[in-house]
Amino acid sequence: MGIVELLLYKPVTGKIISEFTNALLQGPSPLSVAQREMIATFVSHLNGCEFCYKMHKAVMESADAEEGEILECAIYQVESEKVTPKLKALLKLAKLIQSNELHAMEKEISNAHAAGASDEEIHDTVLISSAFCMFNRYVDGLGANLPKDEGAYSSLGAFVAKQGYKSSLSK
Amino acid sequence: MGIVELLLYKPVTGKIISEFTNALLQGPSPLSVAQREMIATFVSHLNGCEFCYKMHKAVMESADAEEGEILECAIYQVESEKVTPKLKALLKLAKLIQSNELHAMEKEISNAHAAGASDEEIHDTVLISSAFCMFNRYVDGLGANLPKDEGAYSSLGAFVAKQGYKSSLSK
Repeated sequence: MGIVELLLYKPVTGKIISEFTNALLQGPSPLSVAQREMIATFVSHLNGCEFCYKMHKAVMESADAEEGEILECAIYQVESEKVTPKLKALLKLAKLIQSNELHAMEKEISNAHAAGASDEEIHDTVLISSAFCMFNRYVDGLGANLPKDEGAYSSLGAFVAKQGYKSSLSK
Repeated sequence: MGIVELLLYKPVTGKIISEFTNALLQGPSPLSVAQREMIATFVSHLNGCEFCYKMHKAVMESADAEEGEILECAIYQVESEKVTPKLKALLKLAKLIQSNELHAMEKEISNAHAAGASDEEIHDTVLISSAFCMFNRYVDGLGANLPKDEGAYSSLGAFVAKQGYKSSLSK
């Protein structure tokens, strides 16, 4: 089964998971939709989840084509000079969360504050990274099928960027 | 701030997280509440999250004092003869998810089926383990305060076992 069927398998949790994804990635936040999708893509890449990596990269690109081009650089070369100090600091937090190396969090949260990140930006980064440690495991742990056609990711990405995650479950 | 304050910091996601926790651990499932809390405790222990480990162990004990005593054994000695073959197989799945060693999932899902686990029991085990990879990181990543008094866990555990997770947020 694919990802939508996985969420529909048990609607009592599937419905809440799609609402949560929508609030997390498209609800109110000082981080842009493209920035949040970039953190989701970055963490999914680190966790080796092909579906989430390709899917959220496509949403990031659709959400903001111009910003997406700069953000893509941060996924693979976080130390690049194109990546702002604040985004570098937030991605360091996302990586510590992904690898569960939490002893270094206090120091890196201070560094993120010093680089201009607000409490809410730090909170949202930590929650997105934590959430993708769940989503990636859920999708790959139960072996959800990947789309056979690579073009499906960009269509799905454009749909989600416009309609949100809740409607992708009810289509 | 403590765990309740952490969820209240951003209610738009905090409210959904508490609804999700309630559906996952107290909603409909072929696994008992005590069994689900045991999986949550086991994964939190592996992730080194002291708050979730102590808190969910207390809920497990309150949910079913008699069953809890047998289940406690499974947290530390999964190979013990007191642990049923089905529970052993489900805990193996929970551990693979926690450590993100997903290449071995297909084989261990077959083993769980052979030990008598249903599709829904396997699904719920995978989702609980994945979810605690989120919860543990969220709580420890933002350094939520631990209760100073160890007795607070058993009071909180008894409250949650009776009232659920949604009401623990609104008290």
